[in-house]
Amino acid sequence: MTLYGRDLLCTQDWTVEELEKTLRLANEFKDTRYDHPLNNCLDRRTFFMFFYNPSVRTRQSFECAATELGGHAQFLEPKTMRLKSAKTAGETVADASNVMSRYASGIGIRILETAIEEYGQGHELLEEYAHHASVPIISMAHDKYHPCQGLADVMGMRAHMSDDLKGKKLVQVWAKGALVRSWCSVQESILINSRLSMDVTLAYPQGYDLDPDVYKMCEENAEQSGGNFEIVHDLEEAYKDADVVYSRNWMTAGFYEDAQKHGIDAAKQKEIELASKHEGWIANDEMMSLTNDALFTHCGPVDRGAEVTDKICDGPRSIVYDVAENRLHVQKAIMALTMGTHNI
Amino acid sequence: MTLYGRDLLCTQDWTVEELEKTLRLANEFKDTRYDHPLNNCLDRRTFFMFFYNPSVRTRQSFECAATELGGHAQFLEPKTMRLKSAKTAGETVADASNVMSRYASGIGIRILETAIEEYGQGHELLEEYAHHASVPIISMAHDKYHPCQGLADVMGMRAHMSDDLKGKKLVQVWAKGALVRSWCSVQESILINSRLSMDVTLAYPQGYDLDPDVYKMCEENAEQSGGNFEIVHDLEEAYKDADVVYSRNWMTAGFYEDAQKHGIDAAKQKEIELASKHEGWIANDEMMSLTNDALFTHCGPVDRGAEVTDKICDGPRSIVYDVAENRLHVQKAIMALTMGTHNI
Amino acid sequence: MTLYGRDLLCTQDWTVEELEKTLRLANEFKDTRYDHPLNNCLDRRTFFMFFYNPSVRTRQSFECAATELGGHAQFLEPKTMRLKSAKTAGETVADASNVMSRYASGIGIRILETAIEEYGQGHELLEEYAHHASVPIISMAHDKYHPCQGLADVMGMRAHMSDDLKGKKLVQVWAKGALVRSWCSVQESILINSRLSMDVTLAYPQGYDLDPDVYKMCEENAEQSGGNFEIVHDLEEAYKDADVVYSRNWMTAGFYEDAQKHGIDAAKQKEIELASKHEGWIANDEMMSLTNDALFTHCGPVDRGAEVTDKICDGPRSIVYDVAENRLHVQKAIMALTMGTHNI
Repeated sequence: MTLYGRDLLCTQDWTVEELEKTLRLANEFKDTRYDHPLNNCLDRRTFFMFFYNPSVRTRQSFECAATELGGHAQFLEPKTMRLKSAKTAGETVADASNVMSRYASGIGIRILETAIEEYGQGHELLEEYAHHASVPIISMAHDKYHPCQGLADVMGMRAHMSDDLKGKKLVQVWAKGALVRSWCSVQESILINSRLSMDVTLAYPQGYDLDPDVYKMCEENAEQSGGNFEIVHDLEEAYKDADVVYSRNWMTAGFYEDAQKHGIDAAKQKEIELASKHEGWIANDEMMSLTNDALFTHCGPVDRGAEVTDKICDGPRSIVYDVAENRLHVQKAIMALTMGTHNI
Repeated sequence: MTLYGRDLLCTQDWTVEELEKTLRLANEFKDTRYDHPLNNCLDRRTFFMFFYNPSVRTRQSFECAATELGGHAQFLEPKTMRLKSAKTAGETVADASNVMSRYASGIGIRILETAIEEYGQGHELLEEYAHHASVPIISMAHDKYHPCQGLADVMGMRAHMSDDLKGKKLVQVWAKGALVRSWCSVQESILINSRLSMDVTLAYPQGYDLDPDVYKMCEENAEQSGGNFEIVHDLEEAYKDADVVYSRNWMTAGFYEDAQKHGIDAAKQKEIELASKHEGWIANDEMMSLTNDALFTHCGPVDRGAEVTDKICDGPRSIVYDVAENRLHVQKAIMALTMGTHNI
Repeated sequence: MTLYGRDLLCTQDWTVEELEKTLRLANEFKDTRYDHPLNNCLDRRTFFMFFYNPSVRTRQSFECAATELGGHAQFLEPKTMRLKSAKTAGETVADASNVMSRYASGIGIRILETAIEEYGQGHELLEEYAHHASVPIISMAHDKYHPCQGLADVMGMRAHMSDDLKGKKLVQVWAKGALVRSWCSVQESILINSRLSMDVTLAYPQGYDLDPDVYKMCEENAEQSGGNFEIVHDLEEAYKDADVVYSRNWMTAGFYEDAQKHGIDAAKQKEIELASKHEGWIANDEMMSLTNDALFTHCGPVDRGAEVTDKICDGPRSIVYDVAENRLHVQKAIMALTMGTHNI
């Protein structure tokens, strides 16, 4: 089983064994940060980071990851790259991918809702890059999925609860907020955790449905893994007996059309107003008291006072900083396995 | 013969022997990408990249090159640097060059037509940096020349045809297009290839004259090398018996004045309209059938459907990806020779 | 005495012994640029550089410094980072600092007058980062102080005059100019040099008062060190018998309020007009003839013709390029001591 040369657009692309191999290596990197035998496996190699959307956290963790493996990550913004589109002249993705494959050992791409016209376009672009590139394409978060975050979440829950998460209840719960969040971290979380046999409860107010294809995959995952996947719209039912609470805002499916019709700022404003109507949807003392002394997790950056109270976020059961750190270890593991010079 | 400390603004700056030495090392780097004895010759050294104009390809290949030699290339945009001008206070190029020479092992500069007021200003700026800096100044493409591209072109033609290009016919042919291209790659190509004894035919519709001083140098080059340099305005004559076709759009000399008078966008629009009148100027099956089974080359990014058809660009005689890759090897060689810690 | 893990917001934060240790190491790095035993002490470590305000010089020297120690400095612009403020949702400085401490070995921050609303806010932000981060916070110049520049100044004066600067007269003199300069380099200079027992004369036209708290610290420094600190408003008195002239423009205290009321551009314009009224305030032959054959120094970039004449700036007593170079050595020393893997 080698992962060398493989793309990673979603954890569903890899087998459970491949994900476990990645998590094992990520844990090794965590334990021996600068002293692991693979710590030079990207020696003088380059990883291209393409940010169609900006990000500080993702850029920091990927660039650190490449550096810690002896390589270098280039921070690139495709706005300076004239790509061919239906309307404009420019370079094709095929040409760009082919040339970049001659320079780099791998390519990361981040593209979220504000850089595309409709849901799914970001994923299609990553697939097009993956089709043409001869080096791995790694999602650094796109409209559909965020595999690095999903793996970091699992790593954090295992470290603070148990290596065997079978039957533990994860409530992936919508939260109010003023930041208009993407679906990617949430969809990745319910996919990977239903696959790793957790009991996943997705909870949100009416109107906040995610991708129905993802729901279908989660159901299949649960069936195969012996886990569970269900959707509820009642807050108390959601939190009840939870072992892990992952409280996170996300936008409605209508955002894309609103953004096309009325502009991104107007679409965001509408989402913020919509979200403000669901006052109780915050991880606070009252809600957490319904749980089985649950861990609190979040993919960051946290919108304090909206998604979670300071008390819970800074409390003894919060694992948010550890999960953020895990992004580094997970990404080092993914790079080492898919691009590294060592045969592992 | 040492190139240590030398500038490279145009291949004409170096002797044929020096260019051949560079090409030999570039080929070695291609054959032993990460295992060459010089692979650490920029160990912890810095190369500054100054992008007055943005570029993805050039930035990628230079930053990779420095990384692969154990160094680091800093991506700098002078818009954040307040340089003294006739109208504004700021730092002089002399001061900037002197200070940067204390930090870096070399400085690359890219400045194209849209960042200057008239043809030649970019070259003058590079000469001013070169005058004051005590470290090498390397052109990363400027209004007049693009030496790294010229060397990459030669390397590609040799690999796919013959080490001895004497008497082979290169047709450097203007193409229609909607991207308004610089003169630098084209002028560098006709200069270096007339110097290396190819039969260079420059072909373009009336009105697309390049720099007459460059024509004069090409004629002198051909005379000295035993090659040939001629200009034609007839498409069929151009392609006839060609061994290599390099089809590439370029703008008219009028662009600079138009951009000053009417703005860059209007000047570009005018160029696109002008170029659209020359329908037949594209490398397609019909044209290529006139050649001596010619290689197709291009400096990239390719404007498919305008400069060349997909069929030719993706065909068995196309060397465009190899030439793009060669940029990396050539730039590593230039860096190793002019800035490296090893005495070679 | 270990500096490992320590912040550096102002040279006042460190003891004289700690500053001397830093200067000794900086001199070693100058003497053995790439061959010092500590030259790999940031091996594969990351330093985050946060530029609230852009800078070429500071970015170049810090990024080179990290590279030369085997590490990597990431160039980050917080404009892409949505931080919580009184008015907007976003991530708290506490969360950002905590997460970044998991990735990086240290964090540099630059924030000047145009990015804040009133004097002192930049310093407060650095203190907030320092409070929450578990890795060193290093000022890369902020509204109040610029410790790296202060150390580079000392290093330059010692190299060109004497290791013992006791009793040498430094005139820190305001100059006209059109660049509207920050207070940070000037305040750092008078602080560190009064502390290291120089006779510091601060000279400026009425209306250009700096922070009175800094004056108080300078007086205390002088008392403890046996140096001197005085303020004069007469140019000839200032230059008389000076051993070092540091001629540098700075803005009035009114800039902040003007910028809030009328915008930054209008506030700058007002400062330029104000400054233009003080015609004689330039380091020229006439002024320098009053000195004790003084060195000329400046933190750069130099506003020639306003702060100093070309003749003086390029003359035999000018140390401006050496001081600029010292930034690199000083910053390497600071990084090695506060973040390095070697126990020193």
